[in-house]
Amino acid sequence: MARALYPGSFDPVTNGHLDIIRRAAALFGHLRVAVFANPDKTGLLAPAERVALLREVLADDRRVTVDLGEGLVVRYAEREGFDVLVRGLRLPSDYEFEYPLALMNRHVSATGIETVFLPTRAEWSFVSSSLVRDLARHGASLAGLVPPAVERALREKWGGTPRRGAD
Amino acid sequence: MARALYPGSFDPVTNGHLDIIRRAAALFGHLRVAVFANPDKTGLLAPAERVALLREVLADDRRVTVDLGEGLVVRYAEREGFDVLVRGLRLPSDYEFEYPLALMNRHVSATGIETVFLPTRAEWSFVSSSLVRDLARHGASLAGLVPPAVERALREKWGGTPRRGAD
Amino acid sequence: MARALYPGSFDPVTNGHLDIIRRAAALFGHLRVAVFANPDKTGLLAPAERVALLREVLADDRRVTVDLGEGLVVRYAEREGFDVLVRGLRLPSDYEFEYPLALMNRHVSATGIETVFLPTRAEWSFVSSSLVRDLARHGASLAGLVPPAVERALREKWGGTPRRGAD
Amino acid sequence: MARALYPGSFDPVTNGHLDIIRRAAALFGHLRVAVFANPDKTGLLAPAERVALLREVLADDRRVTVDLGEGLVVRYAEREGFDVLVRGLRLPSDYEFEYPLALMNRHVSATGIETVFLPTRAEWSFVSSSLVRDLARHGASLAGLVPPAVERALREKWGGTPRRGAD
Amino acid sequence: MARALYPGSFDPVTNGHLDIIRRAAALFGHLRVAVFANPDKTGLLAPAERVALLREVLADDRRVTVDLGEGLVVRYAEREGFDVLVRGLRLPSDYEFEYPLALMNRHVSATGIETVFLPTRAEWSFVSSSLVRDLARHGASLAGLVPPAVERALREKWGGTPRRGAD
Amino acid sequence: MARALYPGSFDPVTNGHLDIIRRAAALFGHLRVAVFANPDKTGLLAPAERVALLREVLADDRRVTVDLGEGLVVRYAEREGFDVLVRGLRLPSDYEFEYPLALMNRHVSATGIETVFLPTRAEWSFVSSSLVRDLARHGASLAGLVPPAVERALREKWGGTPRRGAD
Repeated sequence: MARALYPGSFDPVTNGHLDIIRRAAALFGHLRVAVFANPDKTGLLAPAERVALLREVLADDRRVTVDLGEGLVVRYAEREGFDVLVRGLRLPSDYEFEYPLALMNRHVSATGIETVFLPTRAEWSFVSSSLVRDLARHGASLAGLVPPAVERALREKWGGTPRRGAD
Repeated sequence: MARALYPGSFDPVTNGHLDIIRRAAALFGHLRVAVFANPDKTGLLAPAERVALLREVLADDRRVTVDLGEGLVVRYAEREGFDVLVRGLRLPSDYEFEYPLALMNRHVSATGIETVFLPTRAEWSFVSSSLVRDLARHGASLAGLVPPAVERALREKWGGTPRRGAD
Repeated sequence: MARALYPGSFDPVTNGHLDIIRRAAALFGHLRVAVFANPDKTGLLAPAERVALLREVLADDRRVTVDLGEGLVVRYAEREGFDVLVRGLRLPSDYEFEYPLALMNRHVSATGIETVFLPTRAEWSFVSSSLVRDLARHGASLAGLVPPAVERALREKWGGTPRRGAD
Repeated sequence: MARALYPGSFDPVTNGHLDIIRRAAALFGHLRVAVFANPDKTGLLAPAERVALLREVLADDRRVTVDLGEGLVVRYAEREGFDVLVRGLRLPSDYEFEYPLALMNRHVSATGIETVFLPTRAEWSFVSSSLVRDLARHGASLAGLVPPAVERALREKWGGTPRRGAD
Repeated sequence: MARALYPGSFDPVTNGHLDIIRRAAALFGHLRVAVFANPDKTGLLAPAERVALLREVLADDRRVTVDLGEGLVVRYAEREGFDVLVRGLRLPSDYEFEYPLALMNRHVSATGIETVFLPTRAEWSFVSSSLVRDLARHGASLAGLVPPAVERALREKWGGTPRRGAD
Repeated sequence: MARALYPGSFDPVTNGHLDIIRRAAALFGHLRVAVFANPDKTGLLAPAERVALLREVLADDRRVTVDLGEGLVVRYAEREGFDVLVRGLRLPSDYEFEYPLALMNRHVSATGIETVFLPTRAEWSFVSSSLVRDLARHGASLAGLVPPAVERALREKWGGTPRRGAD
């Protein structure tokens, strides 16, 4: 059976990511989540912090393992024995970005790695890590957007109050 | 493990469909292909002909079964015990059409049926059944667009010559 | 203050339409909803039935009036003294359809009629009258997609059972 | 030098089409405009009427010839010795429709026919034959959207008054 | 009646922005324009200069007030008592960017703030602050793209000649 | 006859660019390729290196000349006597970026410069300089994506092995 990898920057992991993770884990029976940080950008959280938060919020799900990726996603996937990459899709602009990447990954892969896309649930369709980072930097509540552990971690870092609409 | 269904109108099946079928069968270990005809449209081929052609071109692949669907896709999937629908994506307009459908199928499903999308290979990204039908009606060659059995069947119906560029 | 008109085919009115109606009525203090049927298409419901259902589900909202439109939307708007058309937007393909229409309506209008777009709430972003019609024709439950009065009316017409996931 | 063909349905020709025609004629030194009618649709104007109107409005431009096309565009182009198809683009949805068609035309062509796209000027970006047909059927003014000869021809057919905003 | 806020970076204000401002002011009877600068980017003009230019070009319009915003747009709007955000839309990619933002603003707002979109007039559909900045940096004429006061201010800063096509 | 210019950053030139170059040269009988570097970005290759590589891979094509551009593309085109800009299009997002630019170039040009778009062949539709740069930085094989001379040049700079799937 296909072994599935969900690569991403997860800065931070959102409720939308979590939904994709649990649904992909159910589809494939197992899922590896791997954090790949863009070396050209300073993120909100260090890559190791992102891994730690993912492990904390996914601690109850034995189908999921979390790792810190490195280098090209496709090389990591080949080295670790994955057959398929998982990516979530919200609006069509996501697909415009992901489609060439999926074809390129297959082209450069020695094993013909596949990409499958899962459609994000409607209720998370507007949630992105970049909008969440923007809220966090202004100390706004992140309730309903990220898991509580993530909100706590960001609040310690950036301040702000926990109650939505009252911050 | 997830049981996968690839619903479509397949009027006719193209090389792009075949590519999605073989890749999805490899991912899930098995694939059911089901022909759902739009009752409001007169197709090029009768639904039973489409099923027969799919069975002919997929005869060598034991992971794949072909069926004639009926009614709502999501009800067929529930009744037959499928967990996930497979759809191929070419340009973003495909995704604009498929995204609401995937969310709606999940909404009306008692079992929370999933949809996964596979990106079409670059070389088939411009091939659609509707463009193929248009060529077939004008007797043009379909070489490289559909399996030979499909080209033969359409030529018997519509005439035209087999050689590309010479029709 | 601007007088606002929400034109549409409403075949049938969905929960997504209702959300746009109530939000537009709050923004402008008043809203006229007008049913314009496409003369080239046979709808699911007759235009007068659509008006009756809209009136029933909006009976409690004194800011909203419902009418049967006729002819060009822009002429109806001028004749009845409206300054602005309201339209809901879901995916970008909605906007691709609506943008030229808005510019054309302004061009042919003697009074320079405006169009304002409201973004559909995430939870209704996948709901369209055409997907609802497809479910209704197959007797599927419409719970959560349309107001109860609309579901009752369609069930009387098309049969099917009221419980979601059990039809 | 490349010989250029501008195929279309031109039902009716609009100011947007005319702009593309004059710019393409300047680029290539010559342009053939060919009317291809969709046999599955009843148009507003008969194909021969469309050709006659194109000839009338383009009578002053010696670089342009007008013809009634037939069959597949790509076969017509090969038979008549054209190397390149010209198409105008407005919104991205135009390109989503045209891109697969351009690749398909090249694929089925014995001579590797090219397609070049010209971007529509901003002022005509919302003008389409289908919106013009809709206005014409309701007797609205078409001033600024089509050449005067086309407006006259449609008014004789459908009635309506010539003044914008007063019809 | 709804109180409307038009937030943006306005670096610099263009004729497209001005058109949206005047139309939104007419729709709502009043409009607040607020400059929010992206703290991560060095702009062409300092935020205070953008405010000064907006005030200069809008001095004749008593319905419009201009302010320097700060922090999250949604918090500014709540604090100042606005009910609705106004945004202009050009191509669909604008909407892809704005749609998640509108849903997010509503989500984090204690008062359920709305966003309404106005379609940009065709003649300004290609004008953006970023393309204007690029022209300004090369000393090209900005005639027809920005108000004369803005062109003067940028020319003092960047040089270049005022005549189009002759710079 | 129209004189054609293909401006771009070409960091590095890909097989997709080469295909556009040869097809545009055939259409117009001649093509100037000009490298315009974005002064705000540090590229992978210096502008002079990009010119040298273009000259090397195009040495056999007497219809094509290569130059280092400078300043605004439209000013360079006017100064050098070009009538038309050539750009390749892959996915619709390319067109969303290029359409306003084409209209702006025409607006600021004293001579009304045109832009024509050529659709990228399906097999190169996923190839972009930015994805190639990402592969090069990780030492991955670029076989099938760029001309051999470009692959050699990048390998000398970044290391990595030449065999696909084995790097």
